[in-house]
Amino acid sequence: MPVNDVFPVVVGICLDAEAIWTGQNPEAANRPVMLSQGAFAIKEALGPLLDLLDAVRVRATFYIPGVTADRYPDAVRTIHRRGHEVASHTYSHRSVLLLSPGNENADLVRGIEALAAITGERPLTWRSASWEWSAQTLELLLAEGVTVSANFHDRLRPYRHERDGQPLPLVELPVQWHLADAPYFRYGGQVGRVIHAAAQVEAIWQEEFDALYEMPGAFYHLTLHVQLIGHPGRLRMLGRHLRYLASRHRVRFLTAQEAATAVP
Amino acid sequence: MPVNDVFPVVVGICLDAEAIWTGQNPEAANRPVMLSQGAFAIKEALGPLLDLLDAVRVRATFYIPGVTADRYPDAVRTIHRRGHEVASHTYSHRSVLLLSPGNENADLVRGIEALAAITGERPLTWRSASWEWSAQTLELLLAEGVTVSANFHDRLRPYRHERDGQPLPLVELPVQWHLADAPYFRYGGQVGRVIHAAAQVEAIWQEEFDALYEMPGAFYHLTLHVQLIGHPGRLRMLGRHLRYLASRHRVRFLTAQEAATAVP
Amino acid sequence: MPVNDVFPVVVGICLDAEAIWTGQNPEAANRPVMLSQGAFAIKEALGPLLDLLDAVRVRATFYIPGVTADRYPDAVRTIHRRGHEVASHTYSHRSVLLLSPGNENADLVRGIEALAAITGERPLTWRSASWEWSAQTLELLLAEGVTVSANFHDRLRPYRHERDGQPLPLVELPVQWHLADAPYFRYGGQVGRVIHAAAQVEAIWQEEFDALYEMPGAFYHLTLHVQLIGHPGRLRMLGRHLRYLASRHRVRFLTAQEAATAVP
Amino acid sequence: MPVNDVFPVVVGICLDAEAIWTGQNPEAANRPVMLSQGAFAIKEALGPLLDLLDAVRVRATFYIPGVTADRYPDAVRTIHRRGHEVASHTYSHRSVLLLSPGNENADLVRGIEALAAITGERPLTWRSASWEWSAQTLELLLAEGVTVSANFHDRLRPYRHERDGQPLPLVELPVQWHLADAPYFRYGGQVGRVIHAAAQVEAIWQEEFDALYEMPGAFYHLTLHVQLIGHPGRLRMLGRHLRYLASRHRVRFLTAQEAATAVP
Repeated sequence: MPVNDVFPVVVGICLDAEAIWTGQNPEAANRPVMLSQGAFAIKEALGPLLDLLDAVRVRATFYIPGVTADRYPDAVRTIHRRGHEVASHTYSHRSVLLLSPGNENADLVRGIEALAAITGERPLTWRSASWEWSAQTLELLLAEGVTVSANFHDRLRPYRHERDGQPLPLVELPVQWHLADAPYFRYGGQVGRVIHAAAQVEAIWQEEFDALYEMPGAFYHLTLHVQLIGHPGRLRMLGRHLRYLASRHRVRFLTAQEAATAVP
Repeated sequence: MPVNDVFPVVVGICLDAEAIWTGQNPEAANRPVMLSQGAFAIKEALGPLLDLLDAVRVRATFYIPGVTADRYPDAVRTIHRRGHEVASHTYSHRSVLLLSPGNENADLVRGIEALAAITGERPLTWRSASWEWSAQTLELLLAEGVTVSANFHDRLRPYRHERDGQPLPLVELPVQWHLADAPYFRYGGQVGRVIHAAAQVEAIWQEEFDALYEMPGAFYHLTLHVQLIGHPGRLRMLGRHLRYLASRHRVRFLTAQEAATAVP
Repeated sequence: MPVNDVFPVVVGICLDAEAIWTGQNPEAANRPVMLSQGAFAIKEALGPLLDLLDAVRVRATFYIPGVTADRYPDAVRTIHRRGHEVASHTYSHRSVLLLSPGNENADLVRGIEALAAITGERPLTWRSASWEWSAQTLELLLAEGVTVSANFHDRLRPYRHERDGQPLPLVELPVQWHLADAPYFRYGGQVGRVIHAAAQVEAIWQEEFDALYEMPGAFYHLTLHVQLIGHPGRLRMLGRHLRYLASRHRVRFLTAQEAATAVP
Repeated sequence: MPVNDVFPVVVGICLDAEAIWTGQNPEAANRPVMLSQGAFAIKEALGPLLDLLDAVRVRATFYIPGVTADRYPDAVRTIHRRGHEVASHTYSHRSVLLLSPGNENADLVRGIEALAAITGERPLTWRSASWEWSAQTLELLLAEGVTVSANFHDRLRPYRHERDGQPLPLVELPVQWHLADAPYFRYGGQVGRVIHAAAQVEAIWQEEFDALYEMPGAFYHLTLHVQLIGHPGRLRMLGRHLRYLASRHRVRFLTAQEAATAVP
């Protein structure tokens, strides 16, 4: 199947749970109500989200911080068992801007190992916390055998990272802020102080998809958070959106690893 | 009436008045115009809101800080006499993040006693200021005999708090930011810098209600503030919204205490 | 004409020009491009706005800081000559939160005198900068003979200020943030980081007007800024909105002083 | 062709690339993912944008920081070769508020020379970074022979700068925040925390254009950023918008230099 005949759609879903709050601000550990927004992901949202993905026949890629995996290993097992890709999302969900170089490496390694210990498979796809890299992140990823990154904003199509013009064994699946859910739904902790209607977000995503679909070589990469998209009205919108995507005949839903295989 | 046959709707309404401003920043006491946004709740908004609730036959739960009750005892009496639940909302409306442990307890006790002195009934339902708890809040609530909390964001259905796996005499009625009015209507004091049209908010609430209504075990919990929802155009929207809810045959409007009785 | 038969509409318009920027931050005096947003009010916006008000037969109340009057006395004369009320808006447009008590008084007096020197009439209506009062503002206004204030947010109808239960010679025409233009159109200087479509703002204002119009004793009080509302697309919306108001048979457009005469 | 018979439309496009991030905060140089939002302009957005401009027969004015030109000289050559005006946009994209007077001049000169070295033509049109000027900027521009500025917000029509009432050899083509893309699409780095749908932005721009088009002497000046407008769904909207403008019979698309020639 030549690349021109299919339009890849990758659904990346962060299962941060409490780590989205504690990674940004360790004091959040003392704020049980704020943390409960994260626990919502496990207690209410993950199950219906997985059922929806089954219903629309989408295998997604779940980015899971190690600290969340250690706390909720059954959630990781369920995601893995139901055929989704389990990808690493740091251990602590702390931004690399807040870590020393040594700590960055330790956090990366520990995050990968936490998932491997649960699924028995070492994750090969990785996303940073808050979409931040340091100057050494590339080398650390290569050293750990990570083969797919979902972090950069510079392209509309998958590409291979290079060093001094030489291809590296790391494919990038670029992302975009406006194709994520966080800018529209995250509230509290001073990040994002506007809540949009799910129908408005659907319109923004669809206008971008429609244009990407006509663009040679492009793909569609959606970034979701279980605790944000997992509210019933938003899940219903996501179902409409995924069915709309599926209705376009060239669309193929791929995991991050699958999408990367098409990159020379 | 088995739980599967009814869909509980709980309308929680904060009558903060000036305390929403002074609790966050004591210096607001010297800003009479800012405070007048709170006084609006008493002078203009409460009466039409109570009339609307009568018209749509909704008994709500009013969360009232003790300092507001002491300042406006007639408002508390009116709410109580007209059949709504009077619930506690701290004494000072200061966030627990700003209080010492001893002060947290004193503020909780004084808030409860202020309402009991006016209505003759000790309130059994409680909401924190700004939806923040400390590590000791649970114990303090149990010690004071609070039986219903409306604070956490982790579930879409009422549940019983537990300690070490053992059920506690405290039921949680979870809330959600997107099912409150504050993110859309609060302006000034740097919290929430966007004012939405009432019709937009109605659409957000309705898309979530429609999905919750189809979900086994779920309920619908709306959080309002008298000073925000009590403007005429917004009250008209609230009337439309409550009539829409009432039109669904399984909907039952319940106070917080009533909704909690269904939790084993 | 009894008060039940008419519905007062008061259009209050701030002609701040550069003072909206320098009052908030004196360093803005060194930022010529930021200041040019204020100069827009004089160079482009005021003329078409005055023509629009004539076309819809509305006499408005213009709130003018003394510093702006001193800089643009012809604008003040034009507003006065065309039959609008000239009202005071402090001298420097600095918030009272930033002034010493002595400076507050000096700023108030100088602002009134600057306008009187141009129009030959002492202004009797007053609005603070940024809708902030100090604890002494009421006394200062009474001492200066101000008879109408357009500052507080606590009522939906004009009322008389009181002290110790005694009526004072000062009427309040309350205002509301959602019935102003600034929350939707002001951009830059970190205040208000969202720009709405004019049509969205029209919808918000109209949904509130429609409900106020049915409320006994209520009035409609719009707050505009020449530099914000004076852009062509927004002026066109304002024309539609004012014509809609005028189409309701009980509506009477009144200046602030005229609206205040109905208060016992 | 007398000025009354045509309605000038000027499309100003900033090709900032990484400089929009590093100019505001030099530490951004260590944040490769944030910078990748800028690289998107070069790697994906510029080509389709240039094709769109060709398709709608619009010659635009591109504002390019010198640091970006030095990094991507081929992009500058392509823009120049395809008939667009190449204009200067400082060297470093640092706000003048952060520069000493000597550095401001050096940054201005270096920015102009960087472009001249690539195109062989000295740019005559200039835009500051972040629309900020210092008290000396006017003199520096005159000394450097800049003849057109696109910075001020005080008019709806081009005008000539003056000093002591005397005309200067510098024409201003004023801009407006609501006719730019940044307030609606820029996300990250704490500036602009709301992402709008492209269709909403189209509505805001069109309501303003429609009113400007009827205003004697007015013109329409759009401000875009390659990295923001260059996403496929937004480009599609821009195409619709430019075709709508082109459908109005008096519209003439002009470069900044061309538009300035009509100013006496």
